[in-house]
Amino acid sequence: MPDLNAVRLITRKRDGHALEADDIAALVRAYTDGAVPDYQMAAFLMAAFLRGLDATETTALTRAMLHSGTVLDLSDVPGVKVDKHSTGGVGDKVSLVLAPLVAACGVPVPMISGRGLGHTGGTLDKLEAIPGFRTDLSIPEYRDVLERTGAVLIGQTAEIAPADGLLYALRDVTGTVESIPLIAASILSKKLAEGIDALVLDVKTGRGAFMKSQADARQLGATLCRVGRQFGTPTVALLTQMDVPLGRAIGNGPETAEAIQLLRGQTPAGGPCPDVLEVTIALAGEMLHLGDAASSPQEGRRLATAALEDGPAFGAFQEIVEAQGGDLGALENPDSLMGKPVAVLEAETAGFVADVDPLALGYAAVDLGAGRATKEADVDHKAGFVLNKRPGERVEDGEPLAWIYASDPARADLEAVRSAFVLESREAGAANAPSAPRPLVLDRFDGETWETRSGE
Amino acid sequence: MPDLNAVRLITRKRDGHALEADDIAALVRAYTDGAVPDYQMAAFLMAAFLRGLDATETTALTRAMLHSGTVLDLSDVPGVKVDKHSTGGVGDKVSLVLAPLVAACGVPVPMISGRGLGHTGGTLDKLEAIPGFRTDLSIPEYRDVLERTGAVLIGQTAEIAPADGLLYALRDVTGTVESIPLIAASILSKKLAEGIDALVLDVKTGRGAFMKSQADARQLGATLCRVGRQFGTPTVALLTQMDVPLGRAIGNGPETAEAIQLLRGQTPAGGPCPDVLEVTIALAGEMLHLGDAASSPQEGRRLATAALEDGPAFGAFQEIVEAQGGDLGALENPDSLMGKPVAVLEAETAGFVADVDPLALGYAAVDLGAGRATKEADVDHKAGFVLNKRPGERVEDGEPLAWIYASDPARADLEAVRSAFVLESREAGAANAPSAPRPLVLDRFDGETWETRSGE
Repeated sequence: MPDLNAVRLITRKRDGHALEADDIAALVRAYTDGAVPDYQMAAFLMAAFLRGLDATETTALTRAMLHSGTVLDLSDVPGVKVDKHSTGGVGDKVSLVLAPLVAACGVPVPMISGRGLGHTGGTLDKLEAIPGFRTDLSIPEYRDVLERTGAVLIGQTAEIAPADGLLYALRDVTGTVESIPLIAASILSKKLAEGIDALVLDVKTGRGAFMKSQADARQLGATLCRVGRQFGTPTVALLTQMDVPLGRAIGNGPETAEAIQLLRGQTPAGGPCPDVLEVTIALAGEMLHLGDAASSPQEGRRLATAALEDGPAFGAFQEIVEAQGGDLGALENPDSLMGKPVAVLEAETAGFVADVDPLALGYAAVDLGAGRATKEADVDHKAGFVLNKRPGERVEDGEPLAWIYASDPARADLEAVRSAFVLESREAGAANAPSAPRPLVLDRFDGETWETRSGE
Repeated sequence: MPDLNAVRLITRKRDGHALEADDIAALVRAYTDGAVPDYQMAAFLMAAFLRGLDATETTALTRAMLHSGTVLDLSDVPGVKVDKHSTGGVGDKVSLVLAPLVAACGVPVPMISGRGLGHTGGTLDKLEAIPGFRTDLSIPEYRDVLERTGAVLIGQTAEIAPADGLLYALRDVTGTVESIPLIAASILSKKLAEGIDALVLDVKTGRGAFMKSQADARQLGATLCRVGRQFGTPTVALLTQMDVPLGRAIGNGPETAEAIQLLRGQTPAGGPCPDVLEVTIALAGEMLHLGDAASSPQEGRRLATAALEDGPAFGAFQEIVEAQGGDLGALENPDSLMGKPVAVLEAETAGFVADVDPLALGYAAVDLGAGRATKEADVDHKAGFVLNKRPGERVEDGEPLAWIYASDPARADLEAVRSAFVLESREAGAANAPSAPRPLVLDRFDGETWETRSGE
């Protein structure tokens, strides 16, 4: 039997009207309870996708999704709790370095993360590459690890924003994913439910990001900060480049190994690559500032840089891994997380790497087993790539461009990896050369205006 | 598990691209088979509603829905088979007069009709007001009645365009009804499946129609004619006024009684009211022309007028009613179809009827039991109104404005009926006076251009 109220709301949104906050709350509640079926919500989501949601509607949707489940109260845990969320990229292992780094500087980091999505990896899958690491802690365990180690990294539980889980799954199969207000409500409803006092966002832009255009990414960052502040949660967003893979490793085990190497001050296979740390330090600076451990983001960056060099960040990571059941031995031997390469992609000519396409490598990693073809599938934690050569680097004929890792060598598709590389006989120009990398952090937003950063 | 193909098609339509005919066919087939779930089709329908479907896509959608079931072949039935479809109005009993009238003039009318929808009535419900009348004939019975009587009026069967039944039910509960390409595909997929050679459409416009604006109604008429001709089926549309109820009766039994009176040349209760016949004769003229029984629509109108006056139309109706199991005695005593009035709405002052709102009366009739609150509900065939006064007519203080009929007198809501009437102390002007009715047929479309009709 038709739910007349749902049809009325769908029709109003379809015709471009703004909905009342109460109506949005009622719709989300009825959908979560099963009273509004998937097909009505799918029609609403498409209408919202095409007609948009204004600031008030986006806040109302976020509130409705946030209150569809438990909203954790961590006020009895000392300190200003700050989390980071990334909109997703290729090779983005920042959370694994950032959480222990910020915790080591005295700011508690309660982090609820996701799994791989589309061409991007997920923090949970990366952590689970460490044997024994549990991401399915109960809420009491979550509190306990946070208090003992200063950070905790778990997956979304059934108690946290269940409406988001339902809506996300529906958006994924109805062509309604790439909507700024729907994305903002999804991110914030989860993050605001986890008991944080402040939030830093890494909004990625470029061909390897979900938001390809900088205009869309800026709008998403602005929306996230504005809505976050509506809930009394100081929220800062950094706009960062995702035009080439971040760092040298792509895939769960390989990325976790790279993160461990960075925490230990080691040079990853393939040579130095400062970009992961550039993004990590920038985000850490914001988190330490919001967490009252630094008087400014600049001071926060200085503190974070020191904590990384002096070792306490790695110490914090060891504590977190131990508290969450992970094998500490893996931290001593990070290569064990990916095993030996099953194939090597070699250059067929000498020259310079003009380009590495993150989207092609992201999909190739999924096909190799690093991601999921269906929601229920298992991932191969060893599967992935390590780039021996990145854009701007010189390569000799026959020299490795990338190493391929997988539990099942038969899945290695060298040509899929090769298609991501563009080699040129001459150096393309200073812009792509390693000596002059483009700035990765393009802009900063704190809920008022974007500040265009000079390349400090 | 997501159907990737469906998501791709939803996304393309969402982004404003035209879909290939093959893709539309595959989507409709997968939906009809159950492989594409309601929620994906709902998202597609909303994207199509908001982004539109071009002429090629509308034809492809019509073809896919048409071929989702049996396409009847009536080529062994002699004559050019012509049907009429109305987009729905209040008091529209035209089909009951038109089908026997056209059949009596030698053009076979195979008519598959619908039930009441929203504020409008349905031909099936009206026919079923005649005791015993069966609208659920099998396909062989349908052929047989058509051959024997020259006309047949049944409901949609499970074999005919099943995709339309599924899509219509989904559109009804997802706010995606009022889309011109979706309406056109729905109408034509059913009509083209019933074995016709030509089609005449009564596209209604005005506040009592589904298409309130004349621009939308013209676009619907043009789309219907264009798509009909794409299938090699000559299609003509008349644009007709639906700003006041058609005729004096509203509701199933009352409307069938009025149709019988018109077929018998009797004056309905309340006095002469030429508007039902004006529309009927105009449509009949087109049908007789398309059915090769007249050299022009004008000649068709003359033939139809004669057949109505001389009696063969009523004879044809008697044959159809008998062949479909209806009680012929009801045709002799049409008042028996509604019983005695359960209430009378009286004028509270003398004056002129300035306005009668068809939408208000349509909804009041549904509330009285003439329509369905849910798809499964039964209708009260007796329920409805007979207007003693129509716009432009003079009324004395205390004189009846309308009589109310119902099996359950407790459901009669005099104030709901009164709210549809506007009385003024002075005659509003010649435009509303019965001596100078506005032309009901506003325009004619035959697939090429609209012809603006003079008031012939």
